Amino acid sequence: MTERVVLAYSGGLDTSVAIGWIAEATGAEVVAVAVDVGQGGEDLEAIRQRALDCGAVEAYVADARDEFATEYCMPALAANGLYQDAYPLVSGISRPVIVKHLVRAARQFGATTVAHGCTGKGNDQVRFEVSITSLAPDLKCLAPVRDLALTREKAIAYAEKHKLPIETTKKNPFSIDQNVWGRAIETGFLEDIWNAPTKDVYNYTDDPTFPPVADEVIITFDQGVPVALDGEKVTPLQAIQELNRRAGAQGVGRIDIVEDRLVGIKSREIYEAPGAMALIAAHRELENVTLEREQARFKRNVEQRWSELVYDGQWFSPLKKNLDTFIADTQKYVSGDIRLVLHGGRATVSGRRSEQSLYDFNLATYDEGDSFDQSSAVGFIDIYGLTSKLAAARDVKFGNGVDLGDGEL
Amino acid sequence: MTERVVLAYSGGLDTSVAIGWIAEATGAEVVAVAVDVGQGGEDLEAIRQRALDCGAVEAYVADARDEFATEYCMPALAANGLYQDAYPLVSGISRPVIVKHLVRAARQFGATTVAHGCTGKGNDQVRFEVSITSLAPDLKCLAPVRDLALTREKAIAYAEKHKLPIETTKKNPFSIDQNVWGRAIETGFLEDIWNAPTKDVYNYTDDPTFPPVADEVIITFDQGVPVALDGEKVTPLQAIQELNRRAGAQGVGRIDIVEDRLVGIKSREIYEAPGAMALIAAHRELENVTLEREQARFKRNVEQRWSELVYDGQWFSPLKKNLDTFIADTQKYVSGDIRLVLHGGRATVSGRRSEQSLYDFNLATYDEGDSFDQSSAVGFIDIYGLTSKLAAARDVKFGNGVDLGDGEL
Amino acid sequence: MTERVVLAYSGGLDTSVAIGWIAEATGAEVVAVAVDVGQGGEDLEAIRQRALDCGAVEAYVADARDEFATEYCMPALAANGLYQDAYPLVSGISRPVIVKHLVRAARQFGATTVAHGCTGKGNDQVRFEVSITSLAPDLKCLAPVRDLALTREKAIAYAEKHKLPIETTKKNPFSIDQNVWGRAIETGFLEDIWNAPTKDVYNYTDDPTFPPVADEVIITFDQGVPVALDGEKVTPLQAIQELNRRAGAQGVGRIDIVEDRLVGIKSREIYEAPGAMALIAAHRELENVTLEREQARFKRNVEQRWSELVYDGQWFSPLKKNLDTFIADTQKYVSGDIRLVLHGGRATVSGRRSEQSLYDFNLATYDEGDSFDQSSAVGFIDIYGLTSKLAAARDVKFGNGVDLGDGEL
Amino acid sequence: MTERVVLAYSGGLDTSVAIGWIAEATGAEVVAVAVDVGQGGEDLEAIRQRALDCGAVEAYVADARDEFATEYCMPALAANGLYQDAYPLVSGISRPVIVKHLVRAARQFGATTVAHGCTGKGNDQVRFEVSITSLAPDLKCLAPVRDLALTREKAIAYAEKHKLPIETTKKNPFSIDQNVWGRAIETGFLEDIWNAPTKDVYNYTDDPTFPPVADEVIITFDQGVPVALDGEKVTPLQAIQELNRRAGAQGVGRIDIVEDRLVGIKSREIYEAPGAMALIAAHRELENVTLEREQARFKRNVEQRWSELVYDGQWFSPLKKNLDTFIADTQKYVSGDIRLVLHGGRATVSGRRSEQSLYDFNLATYDEGDSFDQSSAVGFIDIYGLTSKLAAARDVKFGNGVDLGDGEL
Repeated sequence: MTERVVLAYSGGLDTSVAIGWIAEATGAEVVAVAVDVGQGGEDLEAIRQRALDCGAVEAYVADARDEFATEYCMPALAANGLYQDAYPLVSGISRPVIVKHLVRAARQFGATTVAHGCTGKGNDQVRFEVSITSLAPDLKCLAPVRDLALTREKAIAYAEKHKLPIETTKKNPFSIDQNVWGRAIETGFLEDIWNAPTKDVYNYTDDPTFPPVADEVIITFDQGVPVALDGEKVTPLQAIQELNRRAGAQGVGRIDIVEDRLVGIKSREIYEAPGAMALIAAHRELENVTLEREQARFKRNVEQRWSELVYDGQWFSPLKKNLDTFIADTQKYVSGDIRLVLHGGRATVSGRRSEQSLYDFNLATYDEGDSFDQSSAVGFIDIYGLTSKLAAARDVKFGNGVDLGDGEL
Repeated sequence: MTERVVLAYSGGLDTSVAIGWIAEATGAEVVAVAVDVGQGGEDLEAIRQRALDCGAVEAYVADARDEFATEYCMPALAANGLYQDAYPLVSGISRPVIVKHLVRAARQFGATTVAHGCTGKGNDQVRFEVSITSLAPDLKCLAPVRDLALTREKAIAYAEKHKLPIETTKKNPFSIDQNVWGRAIETGFLEDIWNAPTKDVYNYTDDPTFPPVADEVIITFDQGVPVALDGEKVTPLQAIQELNRRAGAQGVGRIDIVEDRLVGIKSREIYEAPGAMALIAAHRELENVTLEREQARFKRNVEQRWSELVYDGQWFSPLKKNLDTFIADTQKYVSGDIRLVLHGGRATVSGRRSEQSLYDFNLATYDEGDSFDQSSAVGFIDIYGLTSKLAAARDVKFGNGVDLGDGEL
Repeated sequence: MTERVVLAYSGGLDTSVAIGWIAEATGAEVVAVAVDVGQGGEDLEAIRQRALDCGAVEAYVADARDEFATEYCMPALAANGLYQDAYPLVSGISRPVIVKHLVRAARQFGATTVAHGCTGKGNDQVRFEVSITSLAPDLKCLAPVRDLALTREKAIAYAEKHKLPIETTKKNPFSIDQNVWGRAIETGFLEDIWNAPTKDVYNYTDDPTFPPVADEVIITFDQGVPVALDGEKVTPLQAIQELNRRAGAQGVGRIDIVEDRLVGIKSREIYEAPGAMALIAAHRELENVTLEREQARFKRNVEQRWSELVYDGQWFSPLKKNLDTFIADTQKYVSGDIRLVLHGGRATVSGRRSEQSLYDFNLATYDEGDSFDQSSAVGFIDIYGLTSKLAAARDVKFGNGVDLGDGEL
Repeated sequence: MTERVVLAYSGGLDTSVAIGWIAEATGAEVVAVAVDVGQGGEDLEAIRQRALDCGAVEAYVADARDEFATEYCMPALAANGLYQDAYPLVSGISRPVIVKHLVRAARQFGATTVAHGCTGKGNDQVRFEVSITSLAPDLKCLAPVRDLALTREKAIAYAEKHKLPIETTKKNPFSIDQNVWGRAIETGFLEDIWNAPTKDVYNYTDDPTFPPVADEVIITFDQGVPVALDGEKVTPLQAIQELNRRAGAQGVGRIDIVEDRLVGIKSREIYEAPGAMALIAAHRELENVTLEREQARFKRNVEQRWSELVYDGQWFSPLKKNLDTFIADTQKYVSGDIRLVLHGGRATVSGRRSEQSLYDFNLATYDEGDSFDQSSAVGFIDIYGLTSKLAAARDVKFGNGVDLGDGEL
């Protein structure tokens, strides 16, 4: 029986050519799979037809937008997932859901290999392949660009020679990946890290320099998940989409960083993630109000490791799953309202209220009615400061005390 | 011989009254010490005279602005010190330098006790007292507000009765602490955490809603320390002051959070730190360019612990000092230029260049001349993904594999 | 109505006297509660009667041995709970279960205060009181030794004066706490930390210097919990008891450390925990075989924080519960057999087998049949070592390369 | 000019054959370098001569024992370096020092490549090659076993054909690596992880089952480094050697674990490290006495990361160096005496004394003269327990309080 390869299909030049390229190089039949994670653009049915026209024996398109929002974006929100404290893991969380559909298709269509269009120097090849073997350890992986020498020049020549129904002339100066959680832009003149991004880089966000009037939104969370905007119930997908629209109009969520790739190189990346960044800002402040202090402090470590693992392609790894369990357990009381002002590139929390709040007005207030017993503080400080005091006494004993300066006052 | 108490003196009502109040309650002589950490306001000599007029046997004023900037703000910058990822530790880093001058004065003027004006429910009492006993384990601490029942009402009555040269009618609706690194505002109607801050809360920053034209600044760092702005050499103090001015004019560095105090309560705080936040944004990005990946990842843990310790009053603790050593060692190559655009509340990095950069254009580029060997990636992924693959094979063996969904495609 | 105080009652002199002492000092009625956590010693019914004879209005004794083993010792085992990598938290895990019964009694007998016999300088006062207010925030706490000046001398005088049915002459040179998880010994000549412990310190363990013939035991775990010894099914309690006996006979589990107390002082402690230490040794090695690498690495951080929290009296805190969730999730595959040799103070793993093992003979072997593809290693090393290589090139560029020494070879 | 390859030469069959094998395969001249890190065995001059007899154009032997002890073992001791809390990094710390001499030789003899005898599935290939490129980014690496298909069978055939002066019949059933810090044994029947090790596995340690009479040693440390044994001054090398002898005679330091290799597989390893394990036991307890609590707590995280990095071949990486700086800073007061009892496989601390101790008898004692103010504890507990109490009150409010059980008492 002929071997089958499932190919992650975008509808673009590279993967359209890859259908025939893989078939020629390996003798296998190619099944094309396109997954909608909210990247917008072409109609899925048009993409499906193109795959068949380019020689795929089967073509399958999946609308994974709600699944992606609920099972991938929401855990990223609960984790306040920001790689290098900055990047909301836009591509990092979409690869696993795409892989899940690729593997599902491989099972249904009897394929033994899964192929993807990534190059050999990025993170995404790792995310694809580690996710594939973490879902299906028996499947093989193939990257035609990296493994079958499918360069852009060869792709154009191939498409023209075989008259594939795909444009070969359009060349975006950037390499772009986008989905409902955000948009990533790299390469081109951005590779000179002294260059500022130009306006044409952006698509999800308007220029924050000349914003419309400020927009105020109240986001209601239930156990870490946004469930209403301004009192209107929303699904996770709707929450992200609506905030992409409103925060995007204010230029919120533009990010420009030099980033440490898993493959050992630094690269310069621009991101736009208006909805994601607005939601994370709101979620963090609601956690400030509802998490106990030590819980919050340790969770930061968990968040960092979670973000590293997801960035590094380990979505389906044992540790990532354990960390998800921890994070889910912390979200029990992360419920309530956050008022967010969206304006000129800023998403600023201006109010928070929660039945589950640990903020206690009567303890915090400096007005009358204060229920905090200040006399406890003396004993507290006495014991709390004891280890440092003993260490200081030793410093003094050995002449290592802090230099207070000399000269008369 | 009469005992002596050194009092941290601000020149305001509470500490002016405290001079006599402490003397009456304890029989001790009071030495007043005022430390200039860039808080602005009155002339130091006027403050010194007032202390004497209020009954101090000695009064000492110290201009600690450069010391504060160089020895306290710069380590905070190297640590990207942000408590709860948000608060640049404005008060947390000023207490230790003030304490250093208090202790120095206690030694020179022969005092056995150091007094401060803090209440019994905040962080600052802890920062003062733990710092005092960490510099001078033999000194005693006294907080007249907490320990000698010096309420505001009593202070007003005392001042009027004794005709102290201090205004008793002015009552700021907020409790404020400020220095060159930033400004902290709390209490009043801010204690209702659903209330948005009003315009009168702010002083270091202009409203970002209606900003002037964008301001671009190039900050030059040498080993983590800003040494020039737009090519003009600056001291650390000048760098902060100048960026306070320029970033403040753009409304950069406003912060509004619910915060976990060391004494176990949550409180709502507003901060303004235009210079600090601009510097941290620039410094972080320069680290992205110059730190090795694992170094950067571990440093985040160190930064968090550093910030907790400083927030929690442990500036002079052994661990804090060890962490400083680690951080200083990471700054060896944190040199170069960052271009920062200041506008409408945002401090956005738009360019970075450094002789010490680990960003390697030839490795990163997708253009010709790429020196990255993509063929290495296959072996890398094979081994890198092995532990997750083996774990996945076990999941499959025990029927715990990821559910791929069912139904035909 | 008369107030009621529930007292943690041990049956010894201090708490027997405390019944009347509290009543006299506070006017409250005292309810005595004794909890059996496997400490051995007197019959519970005798203790109950003594409490009544000493003036308690109610006396309740609880056999919490199985509950303690299952709900407290087993989570400690899953966490490999060792404070300072050494102390198996013997007292740290027993206080919460005792408190649970105290609070339950307080509710049933209508008490508003819970009292305990701890002094004011140890960890246990904190563990008792933080546990009490973490289960019942409305209850008050009382420590007669600390708060009502109940010294040992006064206790003896009181007991003799009131002819309490309790011996007043026996004075153990040590302060001891024990339960089925282990035994803690402190004070006396042990306070000189240069003194070696003498033989009379120990009770759970025989001298390892002259051990009987080696004892081999096979411990079967199911999801982290020991379920059989040498093929015989056991409950958690039986597993600990039986290993206390067998490992104790070999002198396994003696610990002698200087320890950092929560209250800021260092103290010298001797522990005996033969069953606990044998179980932890076995459990750790089974984890080596069944946990994925990154899971194991991160779990060590979690274990340390878990141990600190439990040591510090935070058993019922939010973070401790979140960490338990993480740990429980890691134990899914920690099943299989460990062969342990008990001899002369050592509990040494000599074999392990598990259906859930991630050890793969075919990957590990250097014999024929090896399934590991060594050619992957070149690409792996190339990419894995890249960040350090780039950093090294920078070191060389700036003259900071490692000094290779000079002189001719 | 002919290319030159520096080969890490052991004097054994594989590397003796590799001299000619590399020359034939690559056309290069081979320079043999042997480094004495205390592995014992043959005379260095004999090894040097054999290399020349096998065809090396140059042969260099280095006595790196003191350098290894001082610059590699001592930092490992300061870090209490134990991978997986068990393995003292015997091979992990020797590879970097060997590499340093290889690179030095490459520079002096004009080589462009460094070769080593490792296979393609272990850690040591990574340690060699990452260390090489971290010292000399321009050098190439070569592993004849992995890259030039030099199997054992081919090596024997080659040696016999070319009449090399090396025995070809002796075949150790195990793969062994040893140096002064310890000895590592793997493969053979040990690959069945249910098999217990047999006596012939061991060489550095006598059987602990039948030990001689107990041996007591007093180790004096100065800033973390052992400087005297029983009052006799020693160098680091002498300290390790002497304790290898004395602790080895008592069977101290045998380790048997399943270990997570960097290359993703688990392997079973036996180690003997009598001196290292005795020193670490002593050093840890001296740290318990001399480090401040928070310092000690954080250092555990640093130790774990340090051990991972060194195990993973990153000795010369930027983060490893930063961690060394942290660790060195913590050792300032780690000075004093530890009394260690060596007996029957155990190295047990029985006493500690230090001028730099933070143990304070007057604070710790329960005898008279206690200087600890117990009244502080009430205020301390009140504030310390506040966050958990507030969280508990919320649990109660939402019906999530701890289940106290029901039924009458």
